Amino acid sequence: MLVIGERINGMFRDVRRAIQGRDKEVIQDLARRQVEAGAQALDINVGTASAEPVEAMLWLVETTQEAVSARLCIDSAKREVFEPALEAYKGRPIINSTTGAQESLDFFLPLALKHDAELIALTIDESGVPSSTEARVEIAMRILVAAMEYGLPPETLYIDPVVLPVSALQDQPGHVLAAIGQFRQLASPPPHIVVGLSNISQNSTERSLINRTLLVMGIAHGLDAALMDPLDTEMMDAMITAELLLNKNLYCDSFLEAYRR
Amino acid sequence: MLVIGERINGMFRDVRRAIQGRDKEVIQDLARRQVEAGAQALDINVGTASAEPVEAMLWLVETTQEAVSARLCIDSAKREVFEPALEAYKGRPIINSTTGAQESLDFFLPLALKHDAELIALTIDESGVPSSTEARVEIAMRILVAAMEYGLPPETLYIDPVVLPVSALQDQPGHVLAAIGQFRQLASPPPHIVVGLSNISQNSTERSLINRTLLVMGIAHGLDAALMDPLDTEMMDAMITAELLLNKNLYCDSFLEAYRR
Repeated sequence: MLVIGERINGMFRDVRRAIQGRDKEVIQDLARRQVEAGAQALDINVGTASAEPVEAMLWLVETTQEAVSARLCIDSAKREVFEPALEAYKGRPIINSTTGAQESLDFFLPLALKHDAELIALTIDESGVPSSTEARVEIAMRILVAAMEYGLPPETLYIDPVVLPVSALQDQPGHVLAAIGQFRQLASPPPHIVVGLSNISQNSTERSLINRTLLVMGIAHGLDAALMDPLDTEMMDAMITAELLLNKNLYCDSFLEAYRR
Repeated sequence: MLVIGERINGMFRDVRRAIQGRDKEVIQDLARRQVEAGAQALDINVGTASAEPVEAMLWLVETTQEAVSARLCIDSAKREVFEPALEAYKGRPIINSTTGAQESLDFFLPLALKHDAELIALTIDESGVPSSTEARVEIAMRILVAAMEYGLPPETLYIDPVVLPVSALQDQPGHVLAAIGQFRQLASPPPHIVVGLSNISQNSTERSLINRTLLVMGIAHGLDAALMDPLDTEMMDAMITAELLLNKNLYCDSFLEAYRR
C-alpha cells in the first residue's frame, strides 16, 4: 500500500502560512512526521496560498526534499507548475493528476514519459465526474488505452475513481468500491488504484471513522494507494490490519509496531 | 445487517457461572445490553457449562425470551438439544449450525423446515474446513442444492465461510472474503452470508481492531450478518459506517446515534 501523505497542501492553514512566510521548519516538520507515521510519498500542493504558484512550488519541492527522502507527488491545478517542479525534484516523481479528458491526457502522458514519472489519473472526462460504476470503468479504460498509445505501461498509472462526499451523494461510495474491483481486471499487470480519501468525509462529523472505513473497504476490493493523512493513527492501524488480513504483511502479535519499524 | 450477539455462551466465564448457578439476572442483563447495543438476534449456547445440556439450554431459552424480544439463535454441538429448544422458543428461531456434510444436512434441513427456522450453514464437509475459496464455494453450492431439495428457500440460509484465526493461518481471511463475494452469486435471491467474527482474532492481541477490520472488509464484499460482540462499541461504529457507505442507512450528521435509536 502506497501511502501518499496529504498534509503539505496550501488548503491547510498551517501550510498556507508557511508558504507565505517561507517558513521551512513547518514544512519540514510536516514532511518528517508524515514519513515517520508511514507515508512513502508526500503530496505537495501550493493550492491558493501564493500568487506565484511556480515559485512557491519550487520552494516547497526544495524544502521537502531537503528534509526527507520520501517520494514527492507534484500536485497542482496549474499546468505551468509541473515542468519546473519535475525538473527541480531529484527522485522519481508522481504527477497528480490527469483526467481522462483527451486534452488532459495529451498534456500529462508525454510529461510523465519525459520525467519517468508515475501518474495519477482521475476517472473524469469532458462531461465531468461520472455517477455510475460503468462510466468510471469506461474512462479508466480510455486512460489505459491512451497511456499505451503514448508508451506508458499500465503499472505506472494510479487510476482514481473519484471519491465524493458521502454527506452529499450517498450512492457514490458503492460505485467507487465496485469500480476499484473492476479496474484491476482492465490490464495485466493491473494499474495501481488510488483514492483521495478525505473527500469522502467532507462536511461530515466523524471524519476519521468515515475515512478509515472507506479505506478498509477499498483495500478489500484491491485499492493499493491512498492520498491520506498518515498522522491519523487509527487510520494507519486500520490500513495495516486490512493488509495483514490480506496476507500482505507477515502476522506477529505486535504487527502494528512491526509495520511501523 | 443482522447482528447476532455472541455473549450468551458458556465459554464465557460469567455465563458459565450463571448457567451453573441458574442466575437469571446475569443472563437477562447480557441479553438486554446486547439488544440495546444493536443486536437483533442473540446466540444461545450452553457450551460445556453443564452436564445436562438440554435442561441448561431450556433454562437459557426461557430466561432470555423472558427478558427481550430479539430473535434467538439456538447454538449447540449436541443435536439432542435442538428439538426441545426449538419447541420452547416462541419466536422464529435461527439454528446454529449445519455443515455441508450430508448427514448434517439430513438432520438440520428437515429440522429447520419443521420449525420454520432460518439456518446457519458452515462450508465444512466430510473432509473438514476447506483451505481454498473454490472449495468453500463448492460446499456452499452443495448446501444450497440440498436445501432446495428439502424445500428450504435460499434466503432462509446463512452461509458461513468459516473464519479461522489469522494468527495461525494468514492466507485464510483472503479466501473467506473472496468466498463471500462469490456466495452472493450462487442463487437468486441470494443466501444470507454470516461469519463467526471473533474467531479471526483468537490468540491475537488487538482483537477488537482485527475483528472490526475483517467485519468492514466482509461488508464490502456482501456480508449481511455476523455473530459478534455488539458490546464492542468501536466494532458497531465501524459496522454502521460501512453500511452507511453502501447506502444502507440514510446519511445524517449524527448517523451513529440515528442508527442506535
